[in-house]
This record gives sequence, structure tokens and C-alpha cells, in this order.
Amino acid sequence: MSLRVEIINTGTELLLGQVTNTHLGFLAQSLFGLGLRVERQVTVPDGVAIAEAFEEALARADLIIVTGGLGPTSDDITREAASEAFGRKLIFHPEILDGIAAKFSQRKFVMNDLQKAQAMVPEDGVVLDNKNGTAPGLVVMNDKAVAVLLPGPPRELRPMWDNEALPWLRKHFAARLTPVHEITLRVLGMGETRVQILVEDAVRALGPIEVGYCARPGEMDLRLIAADPALVEKAAALARSLVGDVIYAEQSETMEQAVVRVAAAAGKTLATAESCTGGLVASRITNVSGSSDVFRYGWVTYHNAAKTRELGVLPELIAEHGAVSPQVARAMAEGALRESGADIAVAVTGIAGPTGGTPEKPLGLVYFGLAKKGAETVIVEKNLAAARETFKFMASQVALDLLRRACSGG
Amino acid sequence: MSLRVEIINTGTELLLGQVTNTHLGFLAQSLFGLGLRVERQVTVPDGVAIAEAFEEALARADLIIVTGGLGPTSDDITREAASEAFGRKLIFHPEILDGIAAKFSQRKFVMNDLQKAQAMVPEDGVVLDNKNGTAPGLVVMNDKAVAVLLPGPPRELRPMWDNEALPWLRKHFAARLTPVHEITLRVLGMGETRVQILVEDAVRALGPIEVGYCARPGEMDLRLIAADPALVEKAAALARSLVGDVIYAEQSETMEQAVVRVAAAAGKTLATAESCTGGLVASRITNVSGSSDVFRYGWVTYHNAAKTRELGVLPELIAEHGAVSPQVARAMAEGALRESGADIAVAVTGIAGPTGGTPEKPLGLVYFGLAKKGAETVIVEKNLAAARETFKFMASQVALDLLRRACSGG
Repeated sequence: MSLRVEIINTGTELLLGQVTNTHLGFLAQSLFGLGLRVERQVTVPDGVAIAEAFEEALARADLIIVTGGLGPTSDDITREAASEAFGRKLIFHPEILDGIAAKFSQRKFVMNDLQKAQAMVPEDGVVLDNKNGTAPGLVVMNDKAVAVLLPGPPRELRPMWDNEALPWLRKHFAARLTPVHEITLRVLGMGETRVQILVEDAVRALGPIEVGYCARPGEMDLRLIAADPALVEKAAALARSLVGDVIYAEQSETMEQAVVRVAAAAGKTLATAESCTGGLVASRITNVSGSSDVFRYGWVTYHNAAKTRELGVLPELIAEHGAVSPQVARAMAEGALRESGADIAVAVTGIAGPTGGTPEKPLGLVYFGLAKKGAETVIVEKNLAAARETFKFMASQVALDLLRRACSGG
Repeated sequence: MSLRVEIINTGTELLLGQVTNTHLGFLAQSLFGLGLRVERQVTVPDGVAIAEAFEEALARADLIIVTGGLGPTSDDITREAASEAFGRKLIFHPEILDGIAAKFSQRKFVMNDLQKAQAMVPEDGVVLDNKNGTAPGLVVMNDKAVAVLLPGPPRELRPMWDNEALPWLRKHFAARLTPVHEITLRVLGMGETRVQILVEDAVRALGPIEVGYCARPGEMDLRLIAADPALVEKAAALARSLVGDVIYAEQSETMEQAVVRVAAAAGKTLATAESCTGGLVASRITNVSGSSDVFRYGWVTYHNAAKTRELGVLPELIAEHGAVSPQVARAMAEGALRESGADIAVAVTGIAGPTGGTPEKPLGLVYFGLAKKGAETVIVEKNLAAARETFKFMASQVALDLLRRACSGG
């Protein structure tokens, strides 16, 4: 029987929006490797709400992981709330206080009585050593459930989790852990409902598998999860064949990482000529470590004169067809290829808005040019009407995908 | 009586640790301006757990904000769960489906039956327009509570919250809100402890005011909050005089918005020549609507040959001093000024890492050149060692700040 896992994050700063909760992601990814999924996460303020959260979690969960509230001040009541919820007395451990005192003297801080709270341990509890702070972590148990209490600061929590809590959990729950396997396929250029129609029934027919869809502007993820690794592999292979080459990457790889990987593998160099994306395509490529091997030249020709001066786009062409036109996209891409000496160049010209649209050329209209040594230049037209930054992101996705496909011979 | 606010975030990807929850911080900060604090936040997976979370929240809260689960696929059941929890029937609104169909045809996607789910609205519900996606937001009400249902993608959620949900909430709850007033001063180039030492005691002496510090890589915010708007204004004026021109913007204005605003006011045109930032400076400038009035030319000269060919940086200079040197930063900035005919050009050359550092030129070393018509070129050296994307962001902050100061005569 698998374990039901819940996380309780305590901290008023989380609920004020002053701090982003990075504990959930860290713990969830680590638990996933044990075959465990977090079924619910709750954030409560420092103070008494933690007790209520414990009662709720205990009614459902086998394993409860709590972050924060282990410090010495009056609003740090995780230790007390956990002991009460689990029906365990708190017992003073003088050796813990001695350890805290030693850390204090090392840092030249002065101990006070409040620190004594950090040396209280629930009956039958396990102490998790804190090498990066004073408050130890704790494991509290009764015959129904286990709670792991961790300190709030990430630099204390993370090593304690990896080195103390995780090994303990592996051992304690050895008989109940059954790893799950996941493959994520990342898709550009096909909507989530279309993917669902193509994939879901076929994949489910293979066996007990979970199929998830996560759409974002300009892309979507198809997630396949099952206990049986062979089934996930089989489902992924089937999904790849059904969905086709709109799958641009797998697992956590980004579009720009895929572009740099594919370009490096093909030994191709890339150049960019950007108008409406304003440098975003180049910036995303250069986010990738190792991009300097494949990317050398980029232009942001925001003004028409820049298109002419830098990329050799004829002023007559712009006058006749407009800067947002297939003709100018072609001339920009071919100009960038010629100027840079790269193997492949992509050009983007479009109307980002919020102003500048016309009935013939509405906001969101974008032309892409893809020039490749020894090949015909390809022109792509899209309408990506959206708020300015979303528009830029979606346009950069299309431009990067054109580079990716050109590198892989598509 | 103040409102009890809870947030429900839905999404299996959050509980798998694949996506970090940035909605809580965004919404909490915005609600804070209405004098509201989030009392509890819960994350549940896509699917039926959302119904249970609704029941729990309804037992406590006056206002429930839900993110995600409004899409068209089978695991998107926020709409149904909310309607059931509030005892409201879902009614098909053909005009919403028509609107979605129009967006689809604009993007040349094909509609299918699953999309119809997005046109269902609870009785007495309010529809929140989604300018950046297909799923509209919804407000569901009964005589006890209000739930605001928002789409999961941040690019859809944020504008919908600011432009649709927040104005509605202000109006609906007018009698129960006691707004606090806040002025945020945004600082680049001074640490939070230094700002605190300069400001805190002086500002607190003015009256009952909350002073907050929020540090992020490459910048920090000083927040002044009080019930009395005159007191906040007075405190901000004092803080401005104490902290000085490291305040680059106020409230939610970004560095790039400040640059475009100041350049437009001064009637100056800008150009960028980027190596290690890889187009990020240009991309940030072009995120700002109206940037085409001030920004015309940008270069991403990632390779040394590009610096020479496009910006006229002499190969001997690179050979003698290295690409990451004050000499090359100067030549890049002056080359960009000359080539573009702009009034001001900024150049960035540095070592992003993770490889490429040496004892003399460590990872994170960056040189900035600022060339201005009729003025001496300025060179700035920084060490911004950090993970690659953080490094790029911090370097772009410095480059943009140089442009801002050059426009305002600094």
C-alpha cells in the first residue's frame, strides 16, 4: 500500500507573498524518486493554525512533512503542535541544548532561555541533525502516521532532508515504497485537446497509466506516469508516433536547450535577425550553457533603417510590402545568413502591439524566415495576438522551433 | 469586518515539483493593497480533490481564490467543483464559445467539442475576460462567500487579476475593505542592510508606518506601508532624499520601463551591443510598449568575429586584452554608437560561466561601456558571479541602469 503524503508549510512571510515557496518543489521532486507523490500541500501562518492543519492532515495522510516553526520564538509552535496531534509528550534532551550552546559559543552569540525549546523531543521521536543551524529536525510517530519536522531556511532544510530525513524514510518505509515512472513530452504547435484526442484512449488501452496535460502559452506538456517503467516507455513510444514531430523535447528540457543540443549534434551554427521579438530569441539561446559553440551573431533590427543597414533589406522592399511581410522576413533571414556566415539563420518580423495593427495586418501577425545554406528559404506566417510579453514569448518559441527543425533536417 | 481570504492552487505539476507556485506571492501582494491577508493556501492535484478543498475553504473563508483547472480537458474540474460547492447550476453561454471560436480561427486552430466546457458559467456568476488565452475566469457567489476562479498560466492569470478580478472585488467588497497605502522604492546598487541603516529610524519617527525590505538578485525594494496616505508620501519623500539616485523606479515600474520613459522624455535614442547578456538587454527594452520610439539597433556579438565585423572592434585589441576587457567594452559601445547613429549606446562583455573563468578574469567578471554623443565613454567593472540566468539578469540590470542615468543626464 502506497503512502499518502501531505506537506504543511508554515510561515507568515509565504502568505504575505514576501517569500516564494521553494520547499514544495524540492521535496516533491525528491519524494517522486521514492515513488511518492504529494497529495496535498497547505501553507498556514506562524502560530495556532498549524495545529488545525495537523488535525486535518492526520485524518488523511500516512506521512506529513512540515517546514518551519522549529525556532525558539513564541510563534514557532510546530514541535508542540505535532506532539499534541500525535499524542506524544515532549521530553527535554540536555545533550541537544549542549550542542546548541556549542554552536552559539562558536558564533559568539549569547544563549538565552528561549533556546531550551529547541531541545525538546517528542517521546519515541527521532532527532535529525542540523549542520547549518541550531534547530534540529524531528520525526514524530504514532501507530497511524509519521511526521517529519524540518527547519524553514532552505539552506538548513535541504541538506537535512537529503542526509538525515530521506535515509530514515527509505529504511522505515522500505516495505511500502514502490517507485513510479514518468515521461514528459513537450509539444509546440498542437493544442492540448488535439493531443488528448490523438493520445488518451490509445495510451490508456496499454494498461494502468496516468495521462496529464499542462498547457502554457506557446507550448504544452503531455505527462505519462505509471508504476511499470516498461509501460511508460511503451506509452511514450506510442504517443511519439501519434503526436509526431511537434514534440520538441522530453522531460525538463527547454526549447532553447533542445535547439542548442540539436545544433551542436549537427555541427551547425546559428544566427538570429529579430524585429518584434527584440532580442528574446538570442537571449533564450544564450541562456544555455555551451551556446557559444553554435551561436555567434544576432541582430535586433527594430527600426527599418537597421534592417537595411545591417541586413541589407532593400528600402524599396520595405516601402512596397511593409516591414511586417513575407518578403522582408525572407530578406532579413537571408541577410543574417550572409552577414554571419552561419549555417542557419532565423528572422522574425511582426506586430507586437498594443498599437500598430491594421485590418490587413492585425496585431499579432508575425512572419518568420528560415534561411539555410544550400536550401530554399522557408517563410512561416502566424497570428499570435496576445499581451506584449506573451506575444514575444510565443513568437520566440516558433523561431526556435524553426531552428530546431532545420538542424534536425526537418 | 475584514474578509477571510483563502487561496486554492490546483495543478498536479505543482505537487510534482515541476512548477513553482508564483501565484500565491502575486495574489498575496496584490491583496495586501486592499488591506487583506491570505490566511491559508492549499495546493491540490487536478481532479476531484478540488471539491474537498472547496468544502473546507467554504467552512472558513469569505473570499476564495482558485487558480487553474479551467481548461477544456477531463482533469479541469474547477468550474464544476465550484458550482457544486456553491449550489449553482452551470449554464452554457454561446457567446463565450463564439469568442473562443474567434480566437481559434485567428490562430488557425480547429475547434472541437471539448472547448464547450469553457463556455459554461455558474448561475449569477461573473465572467472575467481572458485576453491572453481561451478559458475565461469566473466569479461564483452565494450568500456566504465569493470564489474567484482564475486560469493557471501566469500570463493569463496576472492581467486578468489586475484588470478584471481586482476592480470587481474592490467594488463588490467596498464596504468591507480598509485599504492600506503603499509606496515601493526600487533600488539598484545598494544592499538592503545599508538601506535599512539609512532609512528605518528616520522614517519610523514620522508616525505609525511599516517598513519592508525585499531583496532579489540585482535589485531590492523598499516598501513603506501605512493606513494614512499622507504619512506614506512624507516617508517616501524622506527615503528618496536619504537613499538618493540608486532609486531607479517606484511602485511596479520595471527598470526597462524606467529606461524607455526617461529616454523618451529626453528625446534620446538607444543602441545595445551585447556579448554575455546575449540579447537580454535589448529584449527587456523591447518588452516595453513604445520602445520603438527610442530603440532602433541592437547587436548580439557573441563571437569575437562578430564584434569585429559588426562593431569594428579591432582584432588586435581582442588579442591583446581579451574579449572581456575594458578596452573591448569601450570599442563595442563606441562601435554601436557609430553604426546605429543613436544618442547613447551600452555595451556588455563578461564571463557568464559555468566555464571560462581564470584567476585574472574570474567567472562573473563583466565590463560595461557607455558611449554617448559628445561625451567621454564610461567604463564600469562588476563582479556578478551567479548561476547563468541570474548573472545575465544582474548584468542587464547594470546595463539598463547606465542607459537610464545617461538619459537623465547622470
